[in-house]
Amino acid sequence: MRLRNIPGAEEYLQQNTQYFIKDATACKGEWQSQFEKNQPLHAEFGSGKGQFIVHMAEKYPHVNFIGVEYKAEVLYKALKKAEKKPLNNLKLILFDVSEVETAFAPEELDRIYLNFVDPWHKSRHAKRRLTHRRFLSKFKGLMGPTGEVHFKTDNRPLFQFSLNEFAELDLKMKRISLDLAADEWVDNVTTEYEEKFMKKGNPIFRVEVILRDTPEMKQVK
Amino acid sequence: MRLRNIPGAEEYLQQNTQYFIKDATACKGEWQSQFEKNQPLHAEFGSGKGQFIVHMAEKYPHVNFIGVEYKAEVLYKALKKAEKKPLNNLKLILFDVSEVETAFAPEELDRIYLNFVDPWHKSRHAKRRLTHRRFLSKFKGLMGPTGEVHFKTDNRPLFQFSLNEFAELDLKMKRISLDLAADEWVDNVTTEYEEKFMKKGNPIFRVEVILRDTPEMKQVK
Repeated sequence: MRLRNIPGAEEYLQQNTQYFIKDATACKGEWQSQFEKNQPLHAEFGSGKGQFIVHMAEKYPHVNFIGVEYKAEVLYKALKKAEKKPLNNLKLILFDVSEVETAFAPEELDRIYLNFVDPWHKSRHAKRRLTHRRFLSKFKGLMGPTGEVHFKTDNRPLFQFSLNEFAELDLKMKRISLDLAADEWVDNVTTEYEEKFMKKGNPIFRVEVILRDTPEMKQVK
Repeated sequence: MRLRNIPGAEEYLQQNTQYFIKDATACKGEWQSQFEKNQPLHAEFGSGKGQFIVHMAEKYPHVNFIGVEYKAEVLYKALKKAEKKPLNNLKLILFDVSEVETAFAPEELDRIYLNFVDPWHKSRHAKRRLTHRRFLSKFKGLMGPTGEVHFKTDNRPLFQFSLNEFAELDLKMKRISLDLAADEWVDNVTTEYEEKFMKKGNPIFRVEVILRDTPEMKQVK
């Protein structure tokens, strides 16, 4: 995504105390204390402009949500959206997903959302894809034994790569969709990007995957 | 597929002794004796006009192949193709796949190919899809513990249904492709239908699935 430079985006974030958490690493293992209620904790890794996570927080008041985004100019827009609401179950952090284990303790999360993440289309960059086994293994450590990743993308090669990673690791998949718009049974909350893409009539792919313990997962370095 | 009525198609089949097996049920448990060599046995269920199975038999002489098709007018065309070759590892049978357990003994097959089978798009006809659990359970009985189904289709809803069946039954998937033409690593043998469809630039979906023993498979009625 190309970004306009938004002067003062990071400063604006830093001044917000309701939604923005300045030092995420200080919260590691104690995230529940940041929320009013102790309830399941879901994080979106790469929360972008925030439409998804803000809508989810509104829709599911019995879940605590954390939006994780490493670009201040983007997270700023998410904060702007959140500020229009009274939400006691949402926090936003400015953080690099590749270092996410410094922000969350083992088994602290219950679910991770990956929405329209960078496909890193060159095969030599496969390791940077957030559904690469290197990341899945890391994410598994942050969740309990029934932890799930809910993943959607419009990128067919990325989805194919991801399904094969899940299959090779013998992870349990659920509710696979090859055209989300055609599946009325999915209770879909959209991102900004997704809405634009769907309007063009292109398919969105989606899957839920349980990061269960498998011999294949244990071998991931 | 709409068929022209081909007068004498069944009679033509019945007169061939090299490729056509009149009484498939009589071969149950003894299929290897129909071939020159005792070697792995692969069957295509719904072999249509035969391009795939004839090409496979040529390409893999160390495998025995059986084309299973229930429309004489179509199998006739497969026979015509086979007759142009000298192939000692191919047989063709006129048979309804829903009764396939009367033609093959338990564990007699090593692999099953399903290519562009009828999608039965109405949900009330889901049970008729050859990747429905009812069929998968039946197919599993015909194969050993490492038996594989290799499935391809151009029908997105059927592929989605199939992936979800495999996932719900906790079967092991491999080499999932969402656009076969884009995947140079797949050693693809095409069907007549597939060639036409690919020329239009539409994606072909493909997956290999191991019908392993799982608690979910045992529960299939």
